[in-house]
Amino acid sequence: MSLVVQKFGGTSVADVDRIRHVAGVVAATRAAGHELVVVVSAMAGETNRLLALARQAARTPDDRESDVLVATGEQVTAALLALTLQDTGVDARSFLGHQIRIETDSAFSRARIVRVDVDRLRRALGAGTVAVVAGFQGVDGEGSITTLGRGGSDTSAVALAAALGADTCEIYTDVDGVYTSDPRIVPQARKLDRIAYDEMLELASLGAKVLQIRSVEFAKRYRVPVHVRSTFSGAPGTWVVEEDSRMEEVSVAGVAYDRDEAKLTILRVPDRPGVAARLFGPIARANIVVDMIIQNASADGTTDLTFTVARGDYAKARALVDETARQIGAQGVTGQTDVAKVSVVGIGMRTHAGIAARMFEVLGAEGINVQMISTSEIKVSVVVDEKYTELAVRALHDAFIGGPRP
Amino acid sequence: MSLVVQKFGGTSVADVDRIRHVAGVVAATRAAGHELVVVVSAMAGETNRLLALARQAARTPDDRESDVLVATGEQVTAALLALTLQDTGVDARSFLGHQIRIETDSAFSRARIVRVDVDRLRRALGAGTVAVVAGFQGVDGEGSITTLGRGGSDTSAVALAAALGADTCEIYTDVDGVYTSDPRIVPQARKLDRIAYDEMLELASLGAKVLQIRSVEFAKRYRVPVHVRSTFSGAPGTWVVEEDSRMEEVSVAGVAYDRDEAKLTILRVPDRPGVAARLFGPIARANIVVDMIIQNASADGTTDLTFTVARGDYAKARALVDETARQIGAQGVTGQTDVAKVSVVGIGMRTHAGIAARMFEVLGAEGINVQMISTSEIKVSVVVDEKYTELAVRALHDAFIGGPRP
Repeated sequence: MSLVVQKFGGTSVADVDRIRHVAGVVAATRAAGHELVVVVSAMAGETNRLLALARQAARTPDDRESDVLVATGEQVTAALLALTLQDTGVDARSFLGHQIRIETDSAFSRARIVRVDVDRLRRALGAGTVAVVAGFQGVDGEGSITTLGRGGSDTSAVALAAALGADTCEIYTDVDGVYTSDPRIVPQARKLDRIAYDEMLELASLGAKVLQIRSVEFAKRYRVPVHVRSTFSGAPGTWVVEEDSRMEEVSVAGVAYDRDEAKLTILRVPDRPGVAARLFGPIARANIVVDMIIQNASADGTTDLTFTVARGDYAKARALVDETARQIGAQGVTGQTDVAKVSVVGIGMRTHAGIAARMFEVLGAEGINVQMISTSEIKVSVVVDEKYTELAVRALHDAFIGGPRP
Repeated sequence: MSLVVQKFGGTSVADVDRIRHVAGVVAATRAAGHELVVVVSAMAGETNRLLALARQAARTPDDRESDVLVATGEQVTAALLALTLQDTGVDARSFLGHQIRIETDSAFSRARIVRVDVDRLRRALGAGTVAVVAGFQGVDGEGSITTLGRGGSDTSAVALAAALGADTCEIYTDVDGVYTSDPRIVPQARKLDRIAYDEMLELASLGAKVLQIRSVEFAKRYRVPVHVRSTFSGAPGTWVVEEDSRMEEVSVAGVAYDRDEAKLTILRVPDRPGVAARLFGPIARANIVVDMIIQNASADGTTDLTFTVARGDYAKARALVDETARQIGAQGVTGQTDVAKVSVVGIGMRTHAGIAARMFEVLGAEGINVQMISTSEIKVSVVVDEKYTELAVRALHDAFIGGPRP
């Protein structure tokens, strides 16, 4: 007998019929003798419906009250799944964030888990009850309801798995695993059987939307084996696990892309200490996340400074940078919103030199100009014109991963 | 400056536009300098929608999980009203049952309040914040979410008013007060300016659906002045208050009716001690509420026993009584589901003799046969064929209350 945490996403619980299907998956796991905690998202579309109500109610909805509102989505699903399980003869009981309790900080709408108390869950499990947990939600030190941000139910599931010392955390979703690239763009993309936490972290942050990035951080920190799989097919999916030596044999595990990018360049910035702080201080204070930063030193004592932000933050960032550029005596600011980031990721890169060089070669052969480059130990990212996204992803996948596994 | 509790029902918060109107009423009260707690129901139709989902999920939905499900209705409204108030510049904050906290017993779906802790509300009020409370919900000693039964938000409001020592509890609804009878049946029915708690208790229990009966019990016990009024007109409504001498001058305050009645008669019951317990024991254990009971003694050592139940309980009660009747050797059981109860209510009855006699005279003159009679100190109820309901109500209103006030 093992302890399993299963998480079902919004499309898996989109209506009562699908919830009944999920109850079947849960009942089968329980019948196999496992102790079971099930984490659910809101029914597909429900979170957006509630957020739309909030925007009807207030021009700039307060985050605390928005969290009270949207947390009802997961509460509804948890109750409905518990009811459905009971109806099929499985002893089940719902638990909300504040009942468990999952304590977070007070950063409403994007709270971070600070403590998970699993005593109540353990008692339920000990009594043979399936614990159905409303994902995405927690409670702060004041007892206010918080939410963990988009995809937060993944993090709820992994955090509970970590706190309970679960043997596995199964993330059920509408795809059947993690792919070497987006199958809509790369027909030869294939499902990975295993991927290392670090690779998954890079892929998640680079736009592969299978798992919320914080859930992968949790899984890595507490060594929770995560199994990403399809609610509907029953086939094995992808295990996100600690790296092992076999993984290093594969230089590139995946090719990811992110169209949610915009680029700003400040021209002829005086190359003095403190200038970067002047530029990025206002941006950080506006809660705008800067991704890549590149600086080209030049001979005349000035430098061109380019950075990227999420496309939705472009206008705000541009206004702030225009202002600062004037103050520090830069020549001007240019920007571009039709760029994309394309990345190759793999822990094998650590031992395989020349991945970056080969990448530029492949892109160059397709006539794609690389505008920016950023590298980490296990990934290389480039910014290109958005129109080349599909071409770049396909070419890189062909070069590094190739066709279906022999 | 006084402390006011306002409660808005489902039709008053049916959509974002109406919530905006409610926010206007609240803002005006706050602007007048009052400390303010606002209790809200679920948006009209929402509770039924959620209960329908529960019945889709399970053939006999568990009450605990159903409460988790339906409690989201009030949570949504509380958040939306808080957001709307903030948008109009009023400092507001939502509170759920478990946050306040409103502690109840564990009788899910019809829980009773056992303790109300208002410390958090007082702190919010002290800071000038309008406290927006999700009605209808509480939390039991285990931390499970409970609900107070249909109309429970009235009880939430009055209980909070009692616990806070509020000066007034205003119940905003879609009618403009308590009427001497149902205006849809009696065109001359007029709004009462004042009504005594005891009269309101009788009217509430007799089918006038303006206030949940338990809210009136709370109001009476803690002497909370309740003002029932229209969300939309702004005109003064009806005060539900302690009785005063002026009220006794009016013999009948209102004429009520209830069509949710069914009648069962057990024929020729052996007139022995313990027989009533044999009959009503199984019914009580099945949680069926018996309203009137009448027994006609007869000369031959047997008796006919008639009682009424809610129409929805008829089939279940009939099956139980058929069984018991056989066991105790009664002659048989007859039943009728097309009956109604019509009642006159007024604390003036205590000092005005002959109300019952006059009532039968009025009904007799209309050719209406009285099947059962039940009286209390301040009301007389009769059971008649359902088809006579409107005629009986109009005739009694004409006789005891008359036309519009001079």
